[in-house]
Amino acid sequence: MRAHPAGPRHGEGQPSGGAPVRPRDPAELARLDPRVWCTTAQRGPGGELVLGGCGVSTLAAQYGTPLFVMDEMDVRQRAAAFRSAYDVPEAPADVYYAAKAFLSATLVRWLVEAGLSVDVCTGGELALVVRAGVPGERILFHGNNKSVAELSAGLDAQVHRFVVDSDVEIDRLAALAAARGLVADVLVRVTVGVEAHTHEFIATAHEDQKFGFSLASGAASQAVRRIAAQPSLRLVGLHSHIGSQIFDSDGFDVAAHRVVGFAATVRDEHAIPVEELNLGGGMGIAYLPSDDPLDAEHMAAQLRSIVQRECLAADLPVPRLAVEPGRAIVGPAGVTVYEVGTVKPVELDQGVVRAYVSVDGGMSDNIRTALYDADYCVVLASRVSLAEPMLCRVVGKHCESGDVVVRDAWLPADLAPGDLLAVAATGAYCRAMASTYNLVPRPAVVGVRDGRAAVLLRRETMEDLLRLDPGL
Amino acid sequence: MRAHPAGPRHGEGQPSGGAPVRPRDPAELARLDPRVWCTTAQRGPGGELVLGGCGVSTLAAQYGTPLFVMDEMDVRQRAAAFRSAYDVPEAPADVYYAAKAFLSATLVRWLVEAGLSVDVCTGGELALVVRAGVPGERILFHGNNKSVAELSAGLDAQVHRFVVDSDVEIDRLAALAAARGLVADVLVRVTVGVEAHTHEFIATAHEDQKFGFSLASGAASQAVRRIAAQPSLRLVGLHSHIGSQIFDSDGFDVAAHRVVGFAATVRDEHAIPVEELNLGGGMGIAYLPSDDPLDAEHMAAQLRSIVQRECLAADLPVPRLAVEPGRAIVGPAGVTVYEVGTVKPVELDQGVVRAYVSVDGGMSDNIRTALYDADYCVVLASRVSLAEPMLCRVVGKHCESGDVVVRDAWLPADLAPGDLLAVAATGAYCRAMASTYNLVPRPAVVGVRDGRAAVLLRRETMEDLLRLDPGL
Repeated sequence: MRAHPAGPRHGEGQPSGGAPVRPRDPAELARLDPRVWCTTAQRGPGGELVLGGCGVSTLAAQYGTPLFVMDEMDVRQRAAAFRSAYDVPEAPADVYYAAKAFLSATLVRWLVEAGLSVDVCTGGELALVVRAGVPGERILFHGNNKSVAELSAGLDAQVHRFVVDSDVEIDRLAALAAARGLVADVLVRVTVGVEAHTHEFIATAHEDQKFGFSLASGAASQAVRRIAAQPSLRLVGLHSHIGSQIFDSDGFDVAAHRVVGFAATVRDEHAIPVEELNLGGGMGIAYLPSDDPLDAEHMAAQLRSIVQRECLAADLPVPRLAVEPGRAIVGPAGVTVYEVGTVKPVELDQGVVRAYVSVDGGMSDNIRTALYDADYCVVLASRVSLAEPMLCRVVGKHCESGDVVVRDAWLPADLAPGDLLAVAATGAYCRAMASTYNLVPRPAVVGVRDGRAAVLLRRETMEDLLRLDPGL
Repeated sequence: MRAHPAGPRHGEGQPSGGAPVRPRDPAELARLDPRVWCTTAQRGPGGELVLGGCGVSTLAAQYGTPLFVMDEMDVRQRAAAFRSAYDVPEAPADVYYAAKAFLSATLVRWLVEAGLSVDVCTGGELALVVRAGVPGERILFHGNNKSVAELSAGLDAQVHRFVVDSDVEIDRLAALAAARGLVADVLVRVTVGVEAHTHEFIATAHEDQKFGFSLASGAASQAVRRIAAQPSLRLVGLHSHIGSQIFDSDGFDVAAHRVVGFAATVRDEHAIPVEELNLGGGMGIAYLPSDDPLDAEHMAAQLRSIVQRECLAADLPVPRLAVEPGRAIVGPAGVTVYEVGTVKPVELDQGVVRAYVSVDGGMSDNIRTALYDADYCVVLASRVSLAEPMLCRVVGKHCESGDVVVRDAWLPADLAPGDLLAVAATGAYCRAMASTYNLVPRPAVVGVRDGRAAVLLRRETMEDLLRLDPGL
């Protein structure tokens, strides 16, 4: 489990596991590296961080802290960039937003307006997306364990694609579709034996994971046969997902080779044309300035070229391409604003001092640091300071020593309670995975644009938490 | 971060990181090892798992799955055992239940009835406990970053003890108490340079963590001086917490030596008697049959003896002892019941097959497997099977490959969708750390006793989740 696919391996510029280098100039501490910070992030008059035209102090005063701030223009621009990168006139393609990264009704409307579709993986995500007004033809339904109720809801919503993941699901979906007199369009999720991450990938025959049907074992072929035998199912294509935080196309190259090879098998043995090829998600983002993910345009061009080359070699028509970015759409747009509660210098060995900076959130709003050893950039947000850099660890308020937000950071030595900190690139998998550990209510998420803020998810209240307890 | 203090190191009987040994007799798969399962767990007529006199099939039908089942008698017995082990006539002591492990109003009333007090670490936990009717004199307030609002709430509730953790907090609490004309009783949390876990501990001079004041650096002495200078604060004693999942008293021995030494310093340099010594929590439980934690009685006797010996050596009166078990009270009482959704055989290398068993919950209701590499026992709960053992991995329904509930388990080869599985010892840090990742609502918790079930926390609904979204 230690080599988690959503883990934190980084580009070569960053020494793994160590503290970042001490900045030479205190002014560097205030800098907002555009590789990491959302598009509209800037220092306003007086030095405070301004996001979407809104000063963070004003946002904090109005909405409280911790607060997730989502840069609407950043989200819209990235969504548009993905759309235009992948869906080109000579090769129309689909971009599904992976809703698991972060989901709210307003956010999903921005994405649909930008021409994206949505990938959901539970009945809950489906329910929200449907209630937000997304038409079924813009929805793809993922998940390794969709219940009868979830599959039924998917059929009722007339979702565009079901990505089937097990024999049980094929039988379940076939029966439910048949009972409704429907034909459900399905993709088979295949495991190709590639696990990609950042600049590395491993390729094996077998994959030891819960998702998909193995190519190597023949399970994928059997799944195709099983689907073909069901008049209420139509096999539209194949799905492959190879990992998370992927920075280049090398892993996709191997995966496409194998999955296109399987598409030829499907045509030859089952006489079924593979119309769609969904290469999944996993496109990485920069959490640190040293991270260097390919941008959407170059990744799209490379994926298109790889698939074309493989199809040519296999003598197959090029299928319609689909991808499922989640983090790459909303991750960089998000910023978490915390208020500093305490600053405590702790002596380490050899006289080194680390300041433990406690903020008013923690592992309840960002479990990624503890769960994946994730790294983040953090800055003093409510003001600019020219004090000397101080080695810090930003920690939460939870009763657990692993409650760390940013393991290693340099912050100004005059940092004090009441200051606001901002952590970059928290738009994905932070609010989505948030808990109410220690009965800490979950933060609000506000979208900001042109100096205006609007609530995407309201802050949880103690009443929300206590409502679940019938003993009160 | 990998050597997390709440991590999964186990007793020597269990090969770390490997699959458990294949049972020779299929009947062993149905066995409920009393070292791991709650007191009332047994196989009922027909073989189904019965907890507190309630069959799990009936519970699942009535309350849905996933479902946390809490064995009331188990909780009460453990609470009573801790009370009688620590609070003996010759040395009265306090047992604070660490509410972070799991909190509901009904549960906390069971514990107060058993004579326990409660340790809270946030305003949220305090609010629930107060509303549940726990008097302030039974509450201790922890936390490394208590806000002004939280400290104020603590003073309003007249909590028995504040465990102060930083200079900032000392000043804050002193000012708030003074403004109310109160004197707040405080313990100083000291870091003694001991980190204990299972059968091992490390002892260093410095501790690289957010909690407490260092003895070695002199920070603890300065904190005592700071408190002594505040007329609105009274230093009652010292607090030390050395880790989680501790199986024996070796680490406490070193910690007590150091903290009693500091108590002598406090007497000699500040002329303040240390009336209370709170040794914190961390008492371990068995997640696997091979885990062998000391029981409360033996641990208490050893801690008492260690403290008496150290005080005698330092020529100090023996202070009143306090401990803060959380997991050790509620962990073994909890069982999670899941419904199997899919069973998928996956070929590994060398022809080994692992069945991926998908259940209707996962990392949203139990993050410990992914976060701490935690191990659990799981059994087929709705029936007994004499089918051959099958190597399994129990996984959740979340869209993430790290979504594992039980990494390695042997389950009957005829396991099928619709079967119920039960995972033992999930009473602590599962529901408490639960998320709504993938918009999966959090499970209910029901208490069971004498054939009756009562809801401790009701199941979350989609409406609960969608209520936070103003875009709907």
